[in-house]
Amino acid sequence: MTDVHPAWLPPEAFQAVGSRRVLVRADGPLAETVREEVARAGAQYGATNSGGLTDEGPADLVLTLSESEGADGYAISRRDGVTTVAGGDPAGLLYGFFHVVRLGEGAFEGDREIEHHRPAMRRRMLDHWDNIDVHPVMGQVERGYSGGSIFWEDGAPRPGLSRVRAYGRLLAATGINAVAINNVNVHATEARLLTDRLGEVAAIADELRPYGIRVHLSVNFASPMALGGLPTADPLDEDVRAWWAATTEHVYATIPDFGGYVVKADSEGQPGPFAYARTHADGANMLAEALAPHGGVVHWRAFVYNHRQDWRDRSTDRARAAYDHFAPLDGRFMDNAILQVKHGPMDFQTREPVSPVILAMRRTRLAVELQVTQEYTGQQRHVCYLAPMWSEILAFENVAGAGDLVAVSNVGADRFWTGHPLAQANLYAFGRLAWDPALDPATVLDEWMDMTFIRPGEPLRRALHAVMDGSWRTYERYTAPLGVGFMVRPGHHYGPDVDGYEYTPWGTYHFADRDGVGVDRTRATGTGFTGQYPQPWSDVYESLERCPDELLLFFHHVPYDHVLHSGSTVIQHIYDTHFAGAEEVAEMRAQWAKVGDLVAPDVHARVTELLDEQLRCAEEWRDQVNTYFFRKSGVPDERGRRIF
Amino acid sequence: MTDVHPAWLPPEAFQAVGSRRVLVRADGPLAETVREEVARAGAQYGATNSGGLTDEGPADLVLTLSESEGADGYAISRRDGVTTVAGGDPAGLLYGFFHVVRLGEGAFEGDREIEHHRPAMRRRMLDHWDNIDVHPVMGQVERGYSGGSIFWEDGAPRPGLSRVRAYGRLLAATGINAVAINNVNVHATEARLLTDRLGEVAAIADELRPYGIRVHLSVNFASPMALGGLPTADPLDEDVRAWWAATTEHVYATIPDFGGYVVKADSEGQPGPFAYARTHADGANMLAEALAPHGGVVHWRAFVYNHRQDWRDRSTDRARAAYDHFAPLDGRFMDNAILQVKHGPMDFQTREPVSPVILAMRRTRLAVELQVTQEYTGQQRHVCYLAPMWSEILAFENVAGAGDLVAVSNVGADRFWTGHPLAQANLYAFGRLAWDPALDPATVLDEWMDMTFIRPGEPLRRALHAVMDGSWRTYERYTAPLGVGFMVRPGHHYGPDVDGYEYTPWGTYHFADRDGVGVDRTRATGTGFTGQYPQPWSDVYESLERCPDELLLFFHHVPYDHVLHSGSTVIQHIYDTHFAGAEEVAEMRAQWAKVGDLVAPDVHARVTELLDEQLRCAEEWRDQVNTYFFRKSGVPDERGRRIF
Repeated sequence: MTDVHPAWLPPEAFQAVGSRRVLVRADGPLAETVREEVARAGAQYGATNSGGLTDEGPADLVLTLSESEGADGYAISRRDGVTTVAGGDPAGLLYGFFHVVRLGEGAFEGDREIEHHRPAMRRRMLDHWDNIDVHPVMGQVERGYSGGSIFWEDGAPRPGLSRVRAYGRLLAATGINAVAINNVNVHATEARLLTDRLGEVAAIADELRPYGIRVHLSVNFASPMALGGLPTADPLDEDVRAWWAATTEHVYATIPDFGGYVVKADSEGQPGPFAYARTHADGANMLAEALAPHGGVVHWRAFVYNHRQDWRDRSTDRARAAYDHFAPLDGRFMDNAILQVKHGPMDFQTREPVSPVILAMRRTRLAVELQVTQEYTGQQRHVCYLAPMWSEILAFENVAGAGDLVAVSNVGADRFWTGHPLAQANLYAFGRLAWDPALDPATVLDEWMDMTFIRPGEPLRRALHAVMDGSWRTYERYTAPLGVGFMVRPGHHYGPDVDGYEYTPWGTYHFADRDGVGVDRTRATGTGFTGQYPQPWSDVYESLERCPDELLLFFHHVPYDHVLHSGSTVIQHIYDTHFAGAEEVAEMRAQWAKVGDLVAPDVHARVTELLDEQLRCAEEWRDQVNTYFFRKSGVPDERGRRIF
Repeated sequence: MTDVHPAWLPPEAFQAVGSRRVLVRADGPLAETVREEVARAGAQYGATNSGGLTDEGPADLVLTLSESEGADGYAISRRDGVTTVAGGDPAGLLYGFFHVVRLGEGAFEGDREIEHHRPAMRRRMLDHWDNIDVHPVMGQVERGYSGGSIFWEDGAPRPGLSRVRAYGRLLAATGINAVAINNVNVHATEARLLTDRLGEVAAIADELRPYGIRVHLSVNFASPMALGGLPTADPLDEDVRAWWAATTEHVYATIPDFGGYVVKADSEGQPGPFAYARTHADGANMLAEALAPHGGVVHWRAFVYNHRQDWRDRSTDRARAAYDHFAPLDGRFMDNAILQVKHGPMDFQTREPVSPVILAMRRTRLAVELQVTQEYTGQQRHVCYLAPMWSEILAFENVAGAGDLVAVSNVGADRFWTGHPLAQANLYAFGRLAWDPALDPATVLDEWMDMTFIRPGEPLRRALHAVMDGSWRTYERYTAPLGVGFMVRPGHHYGPDVDGYEYTPWGTYHFADRDGVGVDRTRATGTGFTGQYPQPWSDVYESLERCPDELLLFFHHVPYDHVLHSGSTVIQHIYDTHFAGAEEVAEMRAQWAKVGDLVAPDVHARVTELLDEQLRCAEEWRDQVNTYFFRKSGVPDERGRRIF
């Protein structure tokens, strides 16, 4: 473990707590975890001033329970030299403790009016796309950019699961309370985690439980056939239902606080209820029914579309698919069936409108799914701080009202957890925004750097803000323009290939020709996707005049000389943003170069190396996109810059 | 073996010989092979008319030796009811025997003036790109479309090497006399075939020797380091030279008739002499020197180019690379160093000009390399009879004057040997054209079908000609137009992707923009590649007026409205050929459907299934290419056909 980066919980982050007398007035496993945290900090920082855990007063910090704070909630206050954290339950106590850690010395200064903290989301969850086996194409972690799985190695659980507990601790400090441990594409080996390999799930649950994190499992819809030997997986078949009930019973007998199932059904080759002419409500409810007696939930993914589309068929629109499938089922899902919807209608692009499914399903419990792993946003080789994107999404309409916020994790066996050391901030920010979607991304970044870099001085703080604050918009500038999406290399999705998906079955097209570019999704002349939105968005997106620039090509096919709200033509906007994006990366690199003395050498070296790659790749994006559109449009750059 | 298709040597092909009395007046292993062939045929067909092997006259067929016929040559004649084959050596005897088999009953009818047959090429060779191990991306046989290797399985030689002898027999019937058994990209496991796994090479040589085929081995230039533990592979280093001499000595002690080495050096990541600032003549001569005492040769590949080119760099032209590297070395290679040059300057495209290296190296022994395996020509899922292409190449200038004709083999562990049953004809035709480049491709096809389908009746003969004769030109029509090449899916090279290689480091571009398409390789305004040709080709290719239509875009960048010699504009030519190509495939399928009763059911079913795929893929090519160029050019099809 000594070789693993401490991320936002280095020992120094506990100095303020460790040098105070701390009284924990609660019992049970989570209170015990808090005691251990305090004892560890005290052992390091308490010697000279009698800090550390105390069994009786007087104390500088008192952690106690108070039913009035509610599940996971806590109140923090300070009076007469005593800081008090009142947890609504033991988990709240734990979150309150980490709040004190975040505050550092600030937690012990002056008086503090009572503040009540409650999570906006009931479930703050990370989905791992980890496999036990190494997939020949995808590797061990599907869309993972941080090495192998932290759970499995060489086909078996990692010895001692040494990093899993540390991972749980990091997550608890951000407020995460649920982890699905395996890939939603459930292959044969991993399917068995539900049955004869359930012990491995239990072992992982044991490591995460002390940090208030429940374990969920991705399951294969066809498990009754593959594992149970039944002739069908029909969700209305009595034997199938009995199999799921018995199997689930056994899961809970082994892991009493098991969270539930995650299911990708009828999607990209996964089996599902369509094979039996059943609805996705039938499928989800079957599992919900098996889980209900035990308090579990099923996360049923709405990512269902035709991935064998004919590119010649202009009438099919992948963006429409989830709504078309699920909106008619609103109100038909059981209470413990949670429809898990990707934030956008396509697939975790750098810029998408919010999925209309999220706005439509008023009588269905929802989980909004984000992607911390940077599949389409630079694959943890590019700095791309995603909190500003998530913040925009969560601020849109009722998105933040979903009960669950879920994201695909970005960690792996890499020594920095996330490949790119600065990508740790995305994991941190996800947890914090799931707790409080109203948090300002720059403030979250300050929190993160205060702990990670131990309250850095202004030069480092400024550099980190300069590198990270605008990095998502920078990434957007040098990649696919104006919300049109994709243009990535097929398969691995790294680097540019403007036509890479243009003539494929994946439903991801930009329709660029010599006159214009973009996807006409209007009701008037296009696929009608805009009609899936409630007002005012239905009309806003339909209107060429009112549609936001950044989503223009998602909703409209326009000529290259179409003038944006910005005053620029589309073609000039493409040129300008691509030159600007690459220049911004060069500036990020220059900023980072200046702080070499202020950052641990290993972190600085890794980030420097990756910024070199980011600049190379940004220039490649710039040149390919600009050349592609210049060759198509024939319109020269107004500013005469070099296009190939 | 019963489950393996007999290809062009079914038992019935031996009926005429088997029912005659045959006297073999020669000794030694190859004569013994002929005796065995005769005995086998006699056992099947000789019973009723005392046919078969006889030790004394009278005989219907006499096979004898005659020094006047030269190496591998033979004479055939018939007088007074006796057919005589006079072999210049035992190999000539064998080839003469198979000539009689080809003639069938015709060999025993009337009188026959003496005909002298001598191979045009000294060495008629197949290169296998087989690996011992299964490569995670390439599979076991690189660019193989016929299953696994016929030599190795599960990391070891196939039990009994059962198919290798049958393979040698098939090859001998076409005149092939050399086989390189392993991939030119020599990975770690396969490198050891030179040393501690040499026994496997010897075992394969034992199977091929009875059919007059010598075994060659691809070796890794860095072997002295990887296998010999030396600190360098510098070709001028004395220890390195000594290592190669000793290693080669050991090879010949084990396999006295070993053919020699094949080397891919300084190419696509393979090691080579450039690392030591030595020339490729230095590298090749070092190996030639080690081989010379034993009568071996080295085939040194000229496929050297920068595969990490920047697509933005218009000054580098991959087509120029081989000439630039090797032309200055003409005259500096030893006599047993053979420069192996791909037929075109790029890489086995459907249409390329002949490589200027072949025309330039007047003082160097040359091997011209073709590709029987259909990497860029439909991957044995498409019917693409390649003999017409090879025939054109061999008829160009002095190409047929090369001493060696080499081709990458298309066979594998597939039950039909070649995946597509009709792809057997390519293997057959390669051997026959290597023997006699002047043979008419349609005549070769008749030979092949006479044996394979046992002298088919006119309906089947007509159908096979209809399906196969023009299939290369059909394939050309629906794929990349006018010699521009590529436009295939990157990596696996199957199916269309017009821009797939346009922005990559591979040096394979078409430069299509809204105004025109093609690569300017002229001296006047382009890369100057035309200057590598002797006259008149240097001027013919330079001239927009004189350049053949089918190579226009290889040599020139032209506007879409440029008028071809055919009278069509470039853009209309693209549309017309792509519609025509797909229609021709539909017609091929219709022709094949008619002969279901005339072909073995397994062959008919496999070809039918593959023609379905070929039609699907041809329509995909048609629509992607037409759509791409319509979107770019904006020029509508004159005939108003559907473009997407």
